[in-house]
Amino acid sequence: MEISVKLPPSFSFSKLKGRGVWRYSEAIAGNYRKVITINEGGTPLIKGKVGEVYYKFEGANPTGSFKDRGMTVAISSAVNEGYKIVIAASTGNTAASAAAYSARAGLRIYLVLPKDKVAIGKIAQAVLYGATILEVEGSFDVGMKAVMKLYKDMGIVYPLNSFNPWRLEGQKTIAYEIAEEIRVPDFVFVPVGNAGNIYAIWKGFTELRDAGIIDKIPRMIGVQAEGASPIAKAIVNNLDTPQFVENPETIATAIRIGKPVNWRKAMKAIKESQGTAVYVSDSEIVEAQKELARTEGIGAEPASVASFAGYKKAIQEGLVDKSSEVVIVLTGHALKDPDSMIKSSARRILVNPDHLENVILGDLNAGN
Amino acid sequence: MEISVKLPPSFSFSKLKGRGVWRYSEAIAGNYRKVITINEGGTPLIKGKVGEVYYKFEGANPTGSFKDRGMTVAISSAVNEGYKIVIAASTGNTAASAAAYSARAGLRIYLVLPKDKVAIGKIAQAVLYGATILEVEGSFDVGMKAVMKLYKDMGIVYPLNSFNPWRLEGQKTIAYEIAEEIRVPDFVFVPVGNAGNIYAIWKGFTELRDAGIIDKIPRMIGVQAEGASPIAKAIVNNLDTPQFVENPETIATAIRIGKPVNWRKAMKAIKESQGTAVYVSDSEIVEAQKELARTEGIGAEPASVASFAGYKKAIQEGLVDKSSEVVIVLTGHALKDPDSMIKSSARRILVNPDHLENVILGDLNAGN
Repeated sequence: MEISVKLPPSFSFSKLKGRGVWRYSEAIAGNYRKVITINEGGTPLIKGKVGEVYYKFEGANPTGSFKDRGMTVAISSAVNEGYKIVIAASTGNTAASAAAYSARAGLRIYLVLPKDKVAIGKIAQAVLYGATILEVEGSFDVGMKAVMKLYKDMGIVYPLNSFNPWRLEGQKTIAYEIAEEIRVPDFVFVPVGNAGNIYAIWKGFTELRDAGIIDKIPRMIGVQAEGASPIAKAIVNNLDTPQFVENPETIATAIRIGKPVNWRKAMKAIKESQGTAVYVSDSEIVEAQKELARTEGIGAEPASVASFAGYKKAIQEGLVDKSSEVVIVLTGHALKDPDSMIKSSARRILVNPDHLENVILGDLNAGN
Repeated sequence: MEISVKLPPSFSFSKLKGRGVWRYSEAIAGNYRKVITINEGGTPLIKGKVGEVYYKFEGANPTGSFKDRGMTVAISSAVNEGYKIVIAASTGNTAASAAAYSARAGLRIYLVLPKDKVAIGKIAQAVLYGATILEVEGSFDVGMKAVMKLYKDMGIVYPLNSFNPWRLEGQKTIAYEIAEEIRVPDFVFVPVGNAGNIYAIWKGFTELRDAGIIDKIPRMIGVQAEGASPIAKAIVNNLDTPQFVENPETIATAIRIGKPVNWRKAMKAIKESQGTAVYVSDSEIVEAQKELARTEGIGAEPASVASFAGYKKAIQEGLVDKSSEVVIVLTGHALKDPDSMIKSSARRILVNPDHLENVILGDLNAGN
């Protein structure tokens, strides 16, 4: 299902009120008697130290990822339709977000997670919010398939996965915020997992262009992890359909997905925007996470920095010029996955508190 | 050292531009050739589901705590004064924040941390940002003393602890944001560790009142963890000076401080605002964290939810009326401390993905 939105002729950024996702409520399809919100969206667009690069830091959302933007709309929709039980398959971020919004709405939630493959921060969030956690052996895709089947069999359960079009309605506000703040960049880099987000952002820009608010749309660049890159490989090899990956593997657990349900939408967004896709190795992701933290001061989880790693690769491969205006979407907070952070090396020494100066003088004398 | 700020007569919320801490640059003491910012501040004020309660969610800052507000000012100050090396003792959040801003500024940073007493998310952040981590046996207070001594001995090292008045200049913007959004609440609840933040927030409100922008200031309520509550006990027992705690103990590691350096400032803020203080047990903190997550959908770390636990206690004890307008400052993100979240119980079961419906039907038949 795709939702088509035509902005009212009166739409203008200067007339909007409030902040975050619901600032753009005129643009969000559906009517909501009651909105379930935790003040998601309105995330910072952080200017990089060099060039015309901006980082859209989605880690600043309530549960630490962009998922909250979609969840406020989907959960509001579930509540308005009278559902009491919701379900989602997840690699972790959807789980954390769905659990938070369900808790706020008073809904019961079941989360289907791949056993032992979810970053610790995310599973801890699901626990804190009181979800029922159903673990399955295998990858996210096994859980996704189970949710699709259940949803068809049991109409009483509302599905929160990204085939749910209301989620994409919320996520598209990333584009609205970028356009309101800096108009239209040349490129937008987006990590691609289940592949809804790149489509949602493209949809947002397209709606604004169709309404004459902006005069063009950015080229959308999808970035996947090499071990889970069916869409990026299809684009690179100029194929019309992706070859799904049976056993996806990457340290970027949030995009460890072999059969993205939204692949058609993602490929449409990439093609119609004259964009492209790249894939990056796990070691490129690890390096990118460290570089982003140590030069820009920004901490993002591995799947998030895939977009930054993809940007670096696109520069290397001449796909993007260094002087281009670029937005890199950082989808989730570094705190989601402390184990990945701790892999960066740092000096860590036990010291005598009475003689801290010895360490510092030692460093200075060594010319460090 | 205290910094006195008098707002210019022309100050008006309606004339301000931008978002976050530097939106209030007219109110921030000091001149900055160059500002080191990661778009901190501008955090959501989330309306509670019941009554006139608002949660100021500082977890939405770049490194996940309110510390970023002060760090942008202190690091900008260090850079403008020409320092190349910075240091901070920390229970973890200051460390993460200082490391991020130092990385962005290109400064070398030493962090003095109590060994084995820092939540995993925070130590992981310090590692990711490439700080040199100096671990000491004992509590935060041991590290704090070491930094004070070093700072006096070695003028080349810039100290980032909260006796640094520039940090408090940044932190006071919490008050500016609250006042701009909802004017003046009756009470503001703040967790108290090293005790700078409650003073900073009070200072912000006081500056606005002195300039005639608001007509009163809220009553400031400090909340400490029972095992580390020298200030709260002094206030409760009507003493002029706190009795320091030699071996502070609490699961709320961010406020596990026995000798708060800013105790004078904190007690001044509490007394001059006609506020008070309360202390809460670890089990009240654990319960508050779970309740906040499961009713409001908000995830905050244990030290943060001390303020919510303190609010509940203040209601019980008749210190605050249920109908009062209250802001509860949640200082850090739940993701800072996944171990604390995971202690909340949740159902977690291994399931057959082909028969998810069995679990759900089982629950429904059991009347759950």
